[in-house]
This record gives sequence, C-alpha cells and structure tokens, in this order.
Amino acid sequence: MLEKGKKPFHAYPKSTVNKEDLVFGLRPILEALKAGKDLDKIFVEKGLQNPVLDEILPIVQERGLNVQYVPVEKLNRLTRKNHQGIVAFLSVINYAKIENVVMDAFSKGEDPVIVVLDEITDVRNFGAISRSAECAGAHALLIPQKGSAQINSDAMKTSAGALHHIPVCKTDNLFRAVRYLKDSGLKIVACTEKGDKSMFTTSLTGPVCLVLGSEESGISVDILKLADDKTFIPLKGKIDSLNVSVAAGILLFEIARQRAKE
Amino acid sequence: MLEKGKKPFHAYPKSTVNKEDLVFGLRPILEALKAGKDLDKIFVEKGLQNPVLDEILPIVQERGLNVQYVPVEKLNRLTRKNHQGIVAFLSVINYAKIENVVMDAFSKGEDPVIVVLDEITDVRNFGAISRSAECAGAHALLIPQKGSAQINSDAMKTSAGALHHIPVCKTDNLFRAVRYLKDSGLKIVACTEKGDKSMFTTSLTGPVCLVLGSEESGISVDILKLADDKTFIPLKGKIDSLNVSVAAGILLFEIARQRAKE
Repeated sequence: MLEKGKKPFHAYPKSTVNKEDLVFGLRPILEALKAGKDLDKIFVEKGLQNPVLDEILPIVQERGLNVQYVPVEKLNRLTRKNHQGIVAFLSVINYAKIENVVMDAFSKGEDPVIVVLDEITDVRNFGAISRSAECAGAHALLIPQKGSAQINSDAMKTSAGALHHIPVCKTDNLFRAVRYLKDSGLKIVACTEKGDKSMFTTSLTGPVCLVLGSEESGISVDILKLADDKTFIPLKGKIDSLNVSVAAGILLFEIARQRAKE
Repeated sequence: MLEKGKKPFHAYPKSTVNKEDLVFGLRPILEALKAGKDLDKIFVEKGLQNPVLDEILPIVQERGLNVQYVPVEKLNRLTRKNHQGIVAFLSVINYAKIENVVMDAFSKGEDPVIVVLDEITDVRNFGAISRSAECAGAHALLIPQKGSAQINSDAMKTSAGALHHIPVCKTDNLFRAVRYLKDSGLKIVACTEKGDKSMFTTSLTGPVCLVLGSEESGISVDILKLADDKTFIPLKGKIDSLNVSVAAGILLFEIARQRAKE
C-alpha cells in the first residue's frame, strides 16, 4: 500500500519492472558484477561519490555496460528500498559474442542465420521474435546495447523459454556489428515495407543476416545502406503493415523453406 | 477508489473490460438490440423478472446471442453503476454471415480463404491474427459464439484496425459451420503440431479453410475429424511450439506464396 500523500509511480509501465529483475545498493551491484552477472542497464544518482562506486565504474566501462546518471527521484521510483544511489536491471540471460556465434556456425559447416533487431523496444515483441527465431533454427539475435527491449522475466515468459536456448548478442555499435557480419560473408537482408523485392523472390539461402526495425521508425538509415537486399512481405489488404513479431516469424520460416528445398 | 473493506475485483483481467464496451440496464440493452447493435455476451441476473426483459429475450434468442444467467455479484463486478440486473458487452464490429462471404468470393471468381479460430480466447492473439489475415488477403474469420475472444476495443487496437476491414463470422455450432465449408468445396486444413504433413508440402491453393486452435488445448477433436489435411510448421529448435498468432501469420503467407506462384 502507498503511504498517505505519496503518489503512485508510473515512470515505467508496471509490467516492465519486476522486482526480481532489479538489483540495488553499491555492494550488491559490485558483487553481481564480480560474479559475472549481466546487467542490462545501470542507473546512478547524479553527483554520487563513493569508494565502492569507484570500483564499480571501471568494471562497467570495461564490459561496455549501459550507465545513465539520473536524479535521485528516478531511483526512488524504481525501488522504495535503500538503493544508496544505484539501481541496476539484472539480465535474465547471459549474452554471447557475435564473433563466436558466427565462427561456431561456420566451423560446424552451417550457414549462419543472424536476426538483427534494430530498436525493437517492446518486451513482448522481443520475446515473441526470440521464440520464433529459436523455432526456425536461427543461430542468434543481435541487438544494440541502447534502445533495445529489457530482457527481463516478461521477455523470458513471452519467449516461452526460448531465450534460454538461442544466443543473444549485444553490441554498443550496431552499424559496426552488421558490417562485421557483411565482411564475414553474410548477406544482409533488410526487411522493410519500402523494400524493392518480395521475400518470395529474394534468395535467402546461404549465410544470412535478417534485419528488422521497429514498427514506429523502421530500420536506421545507416544500417539500411549495408543491406544487400531490401525485401518486403507482399500484402494484399487495406492495412499496410504486419505486427513486427508476426513479420519476423513469416520471414524466418521463408528462410527455413528456401533452405529445406536446397 | 475502493471503499474501505471492499475487495478489488478480478473476475476479468482489467485489460479486457473497457467501459466503452459495456452496455447495461434493461432499456439501454433493448434499444441497442433494436438498433441492430451486435452484443457479444449478455449477463442476466438469475431469477430476474421484468416486462422489458420479456421483450429482450425473444430478440436475443432469435439472433442466437450468448446469454448467461449469473449471480448479481458478477454484474456488480462488471459495473458499479445501476445495471438493473443486466449487463452486455457491445461488439465493436458488425458480424457477417459465412454463407454470404463464401458465395461472394465464388461469385467474384476468387478462391475463398477462411480462417477458423477454435477457442482462441486471448484478445491480443485474436487481434494480431485478424491483422495478419487481412494483410494476407483472407476472406473472413470464423469463430464460435461461445469460447472466443471478446471483440472489444483492445482487440480492435491489436488488429491495427483490420477488424474494420475483414469480415468476422460467428456461429453457434462451429462443427456444422466447418462442415458447411467442406460441403461448399473448401479444403479443410487443420494446423496442428501433431499434423502429418509439413505446410511446405501441403497444397494450399484453391478454396481453403485454415483451422487454428488455442495454444493450450489445440483444435477440437470433432473439427479435426473434418480436416482434409493436418499440417504442421516444421520446427528446428528446442522450443516445440510457436505463438498462435505467429503460426497463423506464417501459414497465411504460405497460402499467399503458393497462390502467387500459380
């Protein structure tokens, strides 16, 4: 129950903040980092000075984790407990390195299929895409460090557990990571309503990197420039777009279909 | 705010009861019926006797609407206003007749594609499937009177407005309606993980009725018996099932692909 006079907090939609996904306090966060736990996002109170923080920050920097300096009110909205000026979101998965995933696939004689999610921030869509990608036999998901969905217990639930099985790779520079994939011999296929080739006539065999953007803003311009093919799903109705997780499923199984035929 | 001592109500998940979807009171419901409004479900207080109710019930019966007699507490949980012992869910769409949809498609020289949703009760899944069906050019959705998702403002939102464009048909006997489709020359294709034919090798051209069941209980045994083909989406991962709205999208676009090739 809220105390009298205190307002309820809505900084995050309720469903995206689960208590089990939070870790707070200086020592607990330092210990989580030392134990090798993945932290999705770390909020530090502006101006906070503390010797433990001086131990935390170099680790955070080395691992390229996402830190935001915020007013104390934001932290108070995340937890009502004694957070000591620092709150982090614990990742429910361990991340993989994209280089390892790609080399691993090639060394097994497989053609890697990597699914790039460019700014897909909706937790349910992210979970649903993970599930479809795992079911379709994709090798990994690649997401940017900033501007992705929280991989929390809701994402895990929507993925039906798929996030335990399919590797997820995070990068602090999505453009560079996609260029790495292109240089490694993957065909970059951007899925966009403004594409010039139907997915039915796009060759999706061989090593493929499938890029999907958010329903609102689509794929970033710079990543679109890396695309070898811009493909669309041919629509017949009056509604001119599909839900992004449905579109992902359709494309992933078109990839599977073309491979099965080979 | 709740009064002291009163418990919060959770008979329906909050997100599925929108005030704008409710109509209550004897006269308002009679007028809604006379104005030709579609009511998804009508709750009447057990033992209620009233001359206006005597006018309502014959109309309800004639239209085959879903009436449930419930304790007054259930009505009180739906609305705190003066409901006079009767509450109904207003449909946000007007229903079509399956016979008309099929005849209409045939008369235009088109091969009808009808999507049957057997006990898919999740509003978001229903909305998402409607959107994909409309985008893929399906002719209609067919759902049972009882045991379907509420077609409310949430369903409309998730459908991205597709429910304004694709006809939805309701039947009080799904088995009979599917048999009617079979007798009308549609191939009944049941999509089930226990199918014996991959969707890639199932012929999906010509008039088709695609049957999807709920993630929990699948397709009813009697409807499965009407199936000409039991088809599955070939999965490669450890998670052995897709989200039903993603599965629907994949199948609908496999139907579209096979037709485009013709």
